[in-house]
Amino acid sequence: MKAEYINPFLSSTKNVLETMCQTAVTADKPYLKEDTYSFGDVSGIVGMASETVSGCMVLSFSESCILQIVAKMLYEDPKNTIDDEIVDAVGELTNMICGGARAQLAKLNSKFDLATPTMIKGKGVEIAYFSEAPTIVIPFRTDDGPFVVEANLSSK
Amino acid sequence: MKAEYINPFLSSTKNVLETMCQTAVTADKPYLKEDTYSFGDVSGIVGMASETVSGCMVLSFSESCILQIVAKMLYEDPKNTIDDEIVDAVGELTNMICGGARAQLAKLNSKFDLATPTMIKGKGVEIAYFSEAPTIVIPFRTDDGPFVVEANLSSK
Repeated sequence: MKAEYINPFLSSTKNVLETMCQTAVTADKPYLKEDTYSFGDVSGIVGMASETVSGCMVLSFSESCILQIVAKMLYEDPKNTIDDEIVDAVGELTNMICGGARAQLAKLNSKFDLATPTMIKGKGVEIAYFSEAPTIVIPFRTDDGPFVVEANLSSK
Repeated sequence: MKAEYINPFLSSTKNVLETMCQTAVTADKPYLKEDTYSFGDVSGIVGMASETVSGCMVLSFSESCILQIVAKMLYEDPKNTIDDEIVDAVGELTNMICGGARAQLAKLNSKFDLATPTMIKGKGVEIAYFSEAPTIVIPFRTDDGPFVVEANLSSK
């Protein structure tokens, strides 16, 4: 995965969280994923595919973080637990963030379409990638806790 | 999801299991998925995407079933537990089965490319689909236990 492909995921994440969820985020230094454990308590997975590109993006939130983010997104009080509405919001955020990255990556001649997202609930669930390409992890901090975006993208 | 879209997943699954894994499979009647729990002990997820189609296929095996299938696929004695090699084989089977369905669906004018598969290890993990379309479950039996293929496919 080329280094220039990381920035579209980083900037799209900041943009979606700040404009749709009124949540300030700070990105820390990206690193390579070394294990197969999910970062957070709930994760969204979305595939990226075209004739020339195959990829997958995972968005994974700590519970404290996603409960606040969804509350701000829906202008409601935060919930106490990750219920179906929170899980659905993770799918929507996954779609929006990957969709934003897609638009920027198209300008770098890396064009693809998005698959249907799935959401995985549970802490420490093992999520492995079936890919020879490395998986980049972009860690983010918010006032309410951390989350990560993982991206694995390769040319066919 | 149109009924005619189910058969490509069914026949590709039979074909891959019988030719690549020397495993006879019997398909039972497909049904609509009503909950969000994964069927088996290890699951493969792969996105399907094009300008006109968005989808996701999940392949989920009971432990007894996948240990025998991988043993037959690799001409080795069965392992005792789901390790990294088994998880990787689930990714490969997910890719092959969805790739076979893709070829048949292209003839029905439903063309798409495959994203990078991910594999989820763990029993009863919650896997939800971010989609308005129904998820079809095709249950399969083998001499060594059951597995399912789930497909969610919709036009954009």
